Amino acid sequence: MSNAEPIRPEEGDALGLGEAFVREVEEALAAQDSERVNAVVENLHPADAADLLEALGADERRLLLEMVGTNLEPETLTYLDAGLREPVAAALGPGKVARILELLESDDALAFFEDLDEELRAQILARVPVTIRRLLQEGLTYPEDSAGRLMQREMVVVPSIWTVGETIDYMRAHRKEMPTDFYDLYVVDPRYRPIGKLPLSRVMRHTRPVRILTLMDEDIQSVPVTMDQEEVAWLFKRYSLLSAPVVDDAGRLVGVITVDDVLEVVEEEAEDDLLKLGGVGEADIGEGAMATAKRRIRWLVVTLFNTIVASLVISRFEGTIEEIVALAILMPIVAAMGGNAGMQVVTVTVRALATRALTSRNTMRVVGKEVLVGLTNGLVFATIMGTIAGLWFGRVDLALVLATAMIFNMAWAGLAGTLIPLSLERFGFDPAVAAGPFLTTTTDVLGFFIFLGLATTFLL
Amino acid sequence: MSNAEPIRPEEGDALGLGEAFVREVEEALAAQDSERVNAVVENLHPADAADLLEALGADERRLLLEMVGTNLEPETLTYLDAGLREPVAAALGPGKVARILELLESDDALAFFEDLDEELRAQILARVPVTIRRLLQEGLTYPEDSAGRLMQREMVVVPSIWTVGETIDYMRAHRKEMPTDFYDLYVVDPRYRPIGKLPLSRVMRHTRPVRILTLMDEDIQSVPVTMDQEEVAWLFKRYSLLSAPVVDDAGRLVGVITVDDVLEVVEEEAEDDLLKLGGVGEADIGEGAMATAKRRIRWLVVTLFNTIVASLVISRFEGTIEEIVALAILMPIVAAMGGNAGMQVVTVTVRALATRALTSRNTMRVVGKEVLVGLTNGLVFATIMGTIAGLWFGRVDLALVLATAMIFNMAWAGLAGTLIPLSLERFGFDPAVAAGPFLTTTTDVLGFFIFLGLATTFLL
Repeated sequence: MSNAEPIRPEEGDALGLGEAFVREVEEALAAQDSERVNAVVENLHPADAADLLEALGADERRLLLEMVGTNLEPETLTYLDAGLREPVAAALGPGKVARILELLESDDALAFFEDLDEELRAQILARVPVTIRRLLQEGLTYPEDSAGRLMQREMVVVPSIWTVGETIDYMRAHRKEMPTDFYDLYVVDPRYRPIGKLPLSRVMRHTRPVRILTLMDEDIQSVPVTMDQEEVAWLFKRYSLLSAPVVDDAGRLVGVITVDDVLEVVEEEAEDDLLKLGGVGEADIGEGAMATAKRRIRWLVVTLFNTIVASLVISRFEGTIEEIVALAILMPIVAAMGGNAGMQVVTVTVRALATRALTSRNTMRVVGKEVLVGLTNGLVFATIMGTIAGLWFGRVDLALVLATAMIFNMAWAGLAGTLIPLSLERFGFDPAVAAGPFLTTTTDVLGFFIFLGLATTFLL
Repeated sequence: MSNAEPIRPEEGDALGLGEAFVREVEEALAAQDSERVNAVVENLHPADAADLLEALGADERRLLLEMVGTNLEPETLTYLDAGLREPVAAALGPGKVARILELLESDDALAFFEDLDEELRAQILARVPVTIRRLLQEGLTYPEDSAGRLMQREMVVVPSIWTVGETIDYMRAHRKEMPTDFYDLYVVDPRYRPIGKLPLSRVMRHTRPVRILTLMDEDIQSVPVTMDQEEVAWLFKRYSLLSAPVVDDAGRLVGVITVDDVLEVVEEEAEDDLLKLGGVGEADIGEGAMATAKRRIRWLVVTLFNTIVASLVISRFEGTIEEIVALAILMPIVAAMGGNAGMQVVTVTVRALATRALTSRNTMRVVGKEVLVGLTNGLVFATIMGTIAGLWFGRVDLALVLATAMIFNMAWAGLAGTLIPLSLERFGFDPAVAAGPFLTTTTDVLGFFIFLGLATTFLL
């Protein structure tokens, strides 16, 4: 322990680093107090160290990495935001990165390595031992976001003909090559295809002559190495898996995915839908203003196009609005109620598709139900708003036109809110990205058209 | 194997049950073919059996449960949707449920039990062994969605003074009382406070005289039994935990939470925000139309209120619109662009609050950035739309008024889109529920007010 120990995340801030703590580190960096900086980083959990690197400016980050050097906990790299991996690796230099990757588990090493650029990758590959080089190169041959990228290669594999005694002897004899910590043993047939798994605790509690074959769980879910990570996450959730063997084309065991690898995928997946439905491609909180503005333009262009189409519809009824200005006052209500009711349906439908709660088995029932929900709430709000409009403008005919338009538009919202995401999915598009704008275009256009059309016919 | 084996989920439908499969089961049920039904259910993974129960009608479900009886895999109950637990438990009867709960792990038993109604709970409690009764009763004393409800009580605990040899002897001697499968041993001090954990594999690879104290991981994250499950999930994600000890007020070890228990919480959490931002309280795909319509009304009432306020603003400018109908045509564009830009900001902010990417450390920077993003995109779209409107209506002054209103409203969207969720969070409200409607009310009202106000001042 050095005298630098006092710099620590404050008590109340146990969950995340406090502002004061970051400022203290910045001061130590400014003072070139290497001993103090090293003592701080040494006392941090790797997740917190990564957080610290993210909180610092680019120059301070470089300075800190220089001062800490190889004292940096290897796991720190695995906790770094994707956007920071490249600059941190560049600051460390290929030699140090190579040494760190050697110390990481294969899945963590690959996850970091895959985010670097070509040149840096080549420099690092030239500096790692040949076994790790082969693992990294092979890992990159699997599609992005596939099981091959998620899996780890470290595992304990035993042939199905062994006994508990042979297994224990094998583990004792090879303790040096074993993963640091492991939980399940995988049992393979003579062609190295996984046929079962066995928690280590079960090996411990049985006597030496018991055959592995009689102890293992046969109910395993093999995952093809090319399976998309979303599908993998779905399997883990559906069958409450703790781990799953990954197999190549020939069905041979090549790696293992554990539930902790899937945790991040599950979160990403739900978050992805949320951000897309909100018109944002990615969580961009740490990004610069110009990059964010550019990223968000796409959705706003769609919105602009949508509202221009709606404006064109309105302009067709210019004469009617000139006669009855109340229409201009009320028409946003028809469009907004349809749009919001429809977005409720789109949200539920997109999520149900993602979690596979919506399948061929219940599609028709769900569509029918949503139309009924739209009609019901359409009736409710048409009654409320019709009454208000009737009292406000003293015209029963205007109230009836408004009510009719609202009912139609909200029932349509139920139909379009389900059919649009379903059709997008059917034709291979991502319903979370496109369903919202499609929907609001239809509810705006239909809302204005029905309301102003009925008004032109019955109120002039 | 009976002759009933052919009924299985189809190949292509390996992920989930197919319609044809469900229909075949329904036919077997209608034909009272108990042998066939039993053979089918026996061959299903518990997750698929639960899916089957969910796919059947209420009468068929009851019939199937009657036929299958105690042949039902206990784990089937843990995979059931929350809404189906009560009816399934009622159909099985308290005696059978009691027997099934005995066979489940304590966390799974409690998760099922807590969803039942008072009366059924009492009947079941009267029928389970006293140890399980005490566990269930105690479990219910912890707050809903707390660590106490998530944790399991089955664990292997060793005192810190033991050696590897003593630990192995203890496990051998008590193999009957051990959990079926376990992965980590927990090390406690004399007051039963957790001070470390030890993967079983590490015990295996060391010789008998090695002291536990020297092998264990001291870097453990204890979780108070009353901690909210969202907080627990955050800890697991942040520190990539595989398991964590749960402690009572006195810091004594009372249970263990493992990463697989957290998987569902992580998903629920992100999904929760998504559904709330979409104006829906819960995933309601399986619910009846009337229940859904009722549930969704709340958000629509807020929308209605919001649009009525906007209409009141418009009505103040009735005279202006009568003079220049083009205003009625263009005003939805100002409101929609502000609303959509603002919802992008709300989405990012709500998610950043949930994942703690937004903290006191970067609040000011993020707010400033979002205003800048709004201004930038406001300028872009004001230029585009101003040009279009100028050409469309042949009035430069109208184009300038429109452009000015758009810039103001989109910059406001950046400010309100961050400050509204931040303030809601600060005052203890859920930003995901309320931020959207608040925001669109302000962008509608401000959009219409600035646009029509400027028009009244400069265009009449």
